[in-house]
Amino acid sequence: MRVRFSAIAGAPTLVDVTHVRERSWWGWGWADQALDGPACQELADRVRPFIPLDGDLTPVPQLGAVSLPPCRLRSPGSLDTVCGSTTDERAAHTYGKAYRDVIRALRGDLAPAPDLVAYPRDEADVTAVLDWATAGGVAVVPYGGGTSVVGGVECRDRSRPVVSLDLSRLRGVVEVDEVSLAARIRAGTLGPAIEDELRQYGLTLRHFPQSFEFSTLGGWIATRAGGHYATGHTHIDDMVEAVRMVTPAGVSTSLRVPASAAGPSPDRLWLGSEGTLGVITEAWVRVQRRPRFVAASAVRFDEYADGVAATRDLAQSGLQPANCRLLDGLESMLGAGSTDGSSRLLLSFESADHDVNGSLARAIEICRGHGGRTDESTSDSSARWRGTFLRAPYLRDGLARLGVIVETFETACTWTGFAELHAAVVEAVASAGGDLTGAPAVVGCRLTHVYPDGPAPYFTVYAAGRRGAEVEIWDELKVAASEAILANGGTITHHHAVGRDHRPWYDRERPGPFAVALRAAKAALDPAGILNPGVLVG
Amino acid sequence: MRVRFSAIAGAPTLVDVTHVRERSWWGWGWADQALDGPACQELADRVRPFIPLDGDLTPVPQLGAVSLPPCRLRSPGSLDTVCGSTTDERAAHTYGKAYRDVIRALRGDLAPAPDLVAYPRDEADVTAVLDWATAGGVAVVPYGGGTSVVGGVECRDRSRPVVSLDLSRLRGVVEVDEVSLAARIRAGTLGPAIEDELRQYGLTLRHFPQSFEFSTLGGWIATRAGGHYATGHTHIDDMVEAVRMVTPAGVSTSLRVPASAAGPSPDRLWLGSEGTLGVITEAWVRVQRRPRFVAASAVRFDEYADGVAATRDLAQSGLQPANCRLLDGLESMLGAGSTDGSSRLLLSFESADHDVNGSLARAIEICRGHGGRTDESTSDSSARWRGTFLRAPYLRDGLARLGVIVETFETACTWTGFAELHAAVVEAVASAGGDLTGAPAVVGCRLTHVYPDGPAPYFTVYAAGRRGAEVEIWDELKVAASEAILANGGTITHHHAVGRDHRPWYDRERPGPFAVALRAAKAALDPAGILNPGVLVG
Repeated sequence: MRVRFSAIAGAPTLVDVTHVRERSWWGWGWADQALDGPACQELADRVRPFIPLDGDLTPVPQLGAVSLPPCRLRSPGSLDTVCGSTTDERAAHTYGKAYRDVIRALRGDLAPAPDLVAYPRDEADVTAVLDWATAGGVAVVPYGGGTSVVGGVECRDRSRPVVSLDLSRLRGVVEVDEVSLAARIRAGTLGPAIEDELRQYGLTLRHFPQSFEFSTLGGWIATRAGGHYATGHTHIDDMVEAVRMVTPAGVSTSLRVPASAAGPSPDRLWLGSEGTLGVITEAWVRVQRRPRFVAASAVRFDEYADGVAATRDLAQSGLQPANCRLLDGLESMLGAGSTDGSSRLLLSFESADHDVNGSLARAIEICRGHGGRTDESTSDSSARWRGTFLRAPYLRDGLARLGVIVETFETACTWTGFAELHAAVVEAVASAGGDLTGAPAVVGCRLTHVYPDGPAPYFTVYAAGRRGAEVEIWDELKVAASEAILANGGTITHHHAVGRDHRPWYDRERPGPFAVALRAAKAALDPAGILNPGVLVG
Repeated sequence: MRVRFSAIAGAPTLVDVTHVRERSWWGWGWADQALDGPACQELADRVRPFIPLDGDLTPVPQLGAVSLPPCRLRSPGSLDTVCGSTTDERAAHTYGKAYRDVIRALRGDLAPAPDLVAYPRDEADVTAVLDWATAGGVAVVPYGGGTSVVGGVECRDRSRPVVSLDLSRLRGVVEVDEVSLAARIRAGTLGPAIEDELRQYGLTLRHFPQSFEFSTLGGWIATRAGGHYATGHTHIDDMVEAVRMVTPAGVSTSLRVPASAAGPSPDRLWLGSEGTLGVITEAWVRVQRRPRFVAASAVRFDEYADGVAATRDLAQSGLQPANCRLLDGLESMLGAGSTDGSSRLLLSFESADHDVNGSLARAIEICRGHGGRTDESTSDSSARWRGTFLRAPYLRDGLARLGVIVETFETACTWTGFAELHAAVVEAVASAGGDLTGAPAVVGCRLTHVYPDGPAPYFTVYAAGRRGAEVEIWDELKVAASEAILANGGTITHHHAVGRDHRPWYDRERPGPFAVALRAAKAALDPAGILNPGVLVG
């Protein structure tokens, strides 16, 4: 999947426009968007007042200088044209994009590299890879956009050879049903390609996870991704009309209907299966007309608790704001231009059908009832925050190179339990930071999604790193966070999935009989246990 | 579970107020609401112009005169106090409430009667029954309100003894979380009891299936019941926050969170499991504040297709009407007072937070764009229809005694496929009626629920019966309907569940690998295969 220009009749023609720009093999997103040396220095100057820095900047290793474990696999002749095992492609498929992934890549540690990368062109190729892997006991790790932050695409079990199954060739919007507002889309299609194609019909999937640019429909479905709607249908779960999935036991196609009571929902068992039960190849998803009416505002709360109470009222009002993100003092300062420790609630409404100013007015009225204020200090909060939001993963990589530990984690809980969960998590992580690094970790929180029965708090952690021990320190901080979440009734993940990193807490959260059922389903569908071993079961 | 008054200190005290009124053992609902002789004659006079009648009225058999198959079971001593095997209770637990159930009961045919009825007082009793049944190879049929219309509570497999597990004693709202708007409710609680208890908090579950008065929370969850909201969250699936279920392999308790991406949703595997994987004992459900703002109207369409187009626009508008039911010409005539063959769209909006007149005005504007009219002819449509809707099952029983075949079935499909599905189903059933009875069956349709991607059409069939062959004729009509539904992309059920009646079509609709997974899950959770045999798997 290299950049290619072909010169036909003298004129350079872009053959594969979606692959022109180079992805970073070690960090987030586009290679050309990574912070360069001067930008990292500028970032260091901004961060130093808050977090001690050692003044070093980890260099990015040259891929040529990195050593990979030897390749233990040869593709069978029939799959030669869809498999590769160059250093570049094995390196690029070794990790997801968590902080601990970036640090290990920067260290040149690529121990979990897959032996082979397969790029199936169609469903028949997927079946062929699964058949071959089943026969040979080869682990298969389905790979969409590779943006997992929970170790979902990293096969840590080295006891058998590993194929990374890169679905990027299964791409494109295949069919659009403008009457029923649905589209059939191949699993490997990236977010922007989906939107570009739907835009021609005046439609949008409107599923914007932070990873949008680099993640795929199949990945979203496999991990139950959360989009950018703050209320109502935001998980991809609710947008899925029907799924097609290849399993070692055959191809599953669900019926394309808006709803059904015909037994437990098949799609809901595939949703969140994280590549352990099969490989999603395409789906019919519900799309919508592009919004024509938008109304937005930002509200300031001096007291965080008042902001939480207002947000809860809004979530329970039935107004269904498209955006309803509460940033605490730290998040407001870093992301939305606040300087006084106040919180910001970013609000917006949108519709393709009708004016939404009345809804916004009612929402602001609810906020005022809790001491919220809208004034010029909040007027550019949303625009600022959006910029920070999209830039955040690149800044994360810069900070990682400066030696700062910076990572996020998230959960969901009831409104009733939120205050205690929030306090316990902040306290646990901050104090673990003190124990591990000598200085308390700094913890910010925003509510990314809100439901009538509870919010989804998203935490960002900043801590002083110690060169060479960053991963170990982060892992300890994460243990502290996860224990505090589970002890306070939160789920181990609201939209990041389980992967390998969340497994110990997932095993405790999951009802015992469901584990029994899932293990049995897995054994029946994937008797050789080839699919994403170590994730969810086994 | 008999009516009891206890005389304490001279004053009569109602001990068990929820069981004062007697349920019909052979037909729908309250025994005292069944049509009496004169009411049946009046009904006959109204129906005769449309459907030939033989003038007879099937008498209701006396329970004392009905013979049951011999009881093959004795409860173990430890369960003596929670088990019963009187004729009354075995007869009342033999069937659900489908037309074919009523006919068989009227015939005095109670061949599938359970051997024993168990009424567990608590979860420990449920576990004890399952343990005893597993050890003895006894089939266990979970029984909530007994309103299944798909053979869900009727154990047709007579190869082993059968216990009907009546959950009516597991009742009551146990806990209300007014902050997070959720309530913990025992599975055997009937609809009205749920609403009565929540009303004290100004709250409502607002889940009103037609069976509301006689069905239970556990039954709704086990069958993925559809409520009375026409758009948005209407299936009980979306109202379930957490489920507690007893399986032979242990008790499952899911975490009470608003949303999660921690693997496939455990609750979504229990939802729709129809008593085959375990016995639901309680659930946390999302409740809401009672509506304070309501706006309603009815719109008339001369052309049915215009009504469909308007309804689709409404479903895709984001306006989220609480009610949006399109009645075709026949349904409008029978239920909403229309006399000219026009269709009626019943519309309402409601909110606990804000005025909804603007939403109704916009909805009517959309309807006018499709030729819809609101005038005095439509003004009482909603009230009339509501009366008919609630009375319908009692009328059904009267018609059954008059020899009329009357039954309903339902599906969901895409908007794109609706017109063809509708035409094919009506044609298939009408012509099968002609073949079977000499006169075409009369078929009406209403859209009970509408989604952005498609409607849920609900069909009512009237046909001339032939005494003694009603069940067989209906079964043939149902085959014609089901084949037409599947051939045109519909699901075999949108909210009636699978039970035993829909099994052949369910097996064809369900993706093969999901069947593999479900069978494996069932075998692991219920290795003795005691739970509701014949339903979904096995």
